[in-house]
Amino acid sequence: MSLAIISPGKNPDVWIKEFKALAPDLDLEVYPEITQPEKVEYVFLWQHPEGILSDFPNLKLISSMGAGVDHILRDKSIPSSIPIVRIVDEKLTFSMTNYVVMAVLNYHRQTARYQMNQTKKVWDMSCPELDVAVGVMGVGALGKDVMDKLHSMGFPVVGFGFSEKTDFEYPYYTKDKLDEFLKEVNVLVCLLPLTPDTENILNTQLFEKCSPNTYLINVARGKHLVEDDLIKALDDGHLSGAMLDVYREEPLPKDHPFWENWKIAMTPHIASVTNPQAAAPQVIENIKRIRESRELVNVVNRTRGY
Amino acid sequence: MSLAIISPGKNPDVWIKEFKALAPDLDLEVYPEITQPEKVEYVFLWQHPEGILSDFPNLKLISSMGAGVDHILRDKSIPSSIPIVRIVDEKLTFSMTNYVVMAVLNYHRQTARYQMNQTKKVWDMSCPELDVAVGVMGVGALGKDVMDKLHSMGFPVVGFGFSEKTDFEYPYYTKDKLDEFLKEVNVLVCLLPLTPDTENILNTQLFEKCSPNTYLINVARGKHLVEDDLIKALDDGHLSGAMLDVYREEPLPKDHPFWENWKIAMTPHIASVTNPQAAAPQVIENIKRIRESRELVNVVNRTRGY
Repeated sequence: MSLAIISPGKNPDVWIKEFKALAPDLDLEVYPEITQPEKVEYVFLWQHPEGILSDFPNLKLISSMGAGVDHILRDKSIPSSIPIVRIVDEKLTFSMTNYVVMAVLNYHRQTARYQMNQTKKVWDMSCPELDVAVGVMGVGALGKDVMDKLHSMGFPVVGFGFSEKTDFEYPYYTKDKLDEFLKEVNVLVCLLPLTPDTENILNTQLFEKCSPNTYLINVARGKHLVEDDLIKALDDGHLSGAMLDVYREEPLPKDHPFWENWKIAMTPHIASVTNPQAAAPQVIENIKRIRESRELVNVVNRTRGY
Repeated sequence: MSLAIISPGKNPDVWIKEFKALAPDLDLEVYPEITQPEKVEYVFLWQHPEGILSDFPNLKLISSMGAGVDHILRDKSIPSSIPIVRIVDEKLTFSMTNYVVMAVLNYHRQTARYQMNQTKKVWDMSCPELDVAVGVMGVGALGKDVMDKLHSMGFPVVGFGFSEKTDFEYPYYTKDKLDEFLKEVNVLVCLLPLTPDTENILNTQLFEKCSPNTYLINVARGKHLVEDDLIKALDDGHLSGAMLDVYREEPLPKDHPFWENWKIAMTPHIASVTNPQAAAPQVIENIKRIRESRELVNVVNRTRGY
């Protein structure tokens, strides 16, 4: 039996190193040079070519290389009997939270305005802070940590999601109360999983319900955002600005209008990158559990999509 | 008896409004139009002209308009028998901490590099984070809160100060261990009070002992920093960059070299601005206490300088 790493366009060396250190007896295969497909029992995936998993007749476990699994679930050819697991990584949470807090603080403290003033040698002490109330869409492990940190720093936080929650520590709204949620906040953070429910959720209809001058932070997936609608909302003033880490097409094409829009701050999908040292032991642990017929950790519910 | 507001160049209206609401029976005078100096028992000061307090023969209490009192203590003509009190304000802590965390996160996440890449339409995912360990110089109410928040966000924090501390929650170094302190950290935050001990403390001698590429954040007072030494340290690589909120001369003169130094990010002394709504009740409370011969709150120790 072997573990196949399938991540076209990504260098798998760091992962190979970690897997070899943790499980020296585990055979590794790397796509596209897979020599013995019938021996592949476990796959470790990042944006695999659709349909390819049918090459592995003895497949028992699918591991995602990240926290998201939308890149796996889009492949409808995968038999529903094979469990899918994902990475839940403290370091991933550390990075994601610190990125979002950075984006919120830069809006709150108006870093961009002060940078502009510096280039013009303008000393303007007026309005050093904007009041912000942060709405977090998606309150899983990442969203909840973002809320905890912002709350402890003194900011009001409100959550939004598709599941009902009882005993949630902060005000929380579900789908039918989206309007009320949007009225409560002027900074909107998208940390939703990408599912049929959430694809294109950040669109004109939503932006028009936002509080005036709402600031958008998207660190989830490019497909949450209708990109033309964002440009329109920034132009007509429904949104005051945006910080984006993810895009419908990555790398972002050179002729994309986002690059030159001064109301958009961009990073190249680096808000939170899976850390092989933290993630590899989770993959190996699940392989061990499947061999021992024990319950897996961080199993994905395919109906929910995460 | 009356309270005199002495803050040349600052509009006192917001303070007058707060004081009137809190203590309608208290007479207010505003410098320079003080009509009955012999009735002035309390003064509320921000950068008063030196020597002016001798005009008030019945002065009983000096309140600083901020957390710092260096602007009062530099006036050696003030009799040592008159107590000096300062503002300790949660909102001031909120603002200061959030400013410092913003500056630390922008260095950690390399915001400036990504902004530069965006202008050049460069998609570069390499090195999304710098490891940072933060050294906080000055661990009073503000410094301690900065440490707590950065620690809870997952960053190592180390403190430095002039007083001995027992049971301090984080590693802490005093004056004779400055070298060890500097070796532990690569982000240096100055939140010291301005005293003869700390004036000019941020100088070439200190910068040369810093870890390579240390990043400096000064949010205390301009006089902590020898400005020419900073430029030298940025040029020769002892420091990688700086974020400054305070300067030896404010507003910063138009011909000052900081404006055009791309390694320096600047704000115009707005990191933390005393909030009249929070601070005015503290001033009135101390006036009440002095009338009732009760112990004052937030009294300054003139020997320590804060």
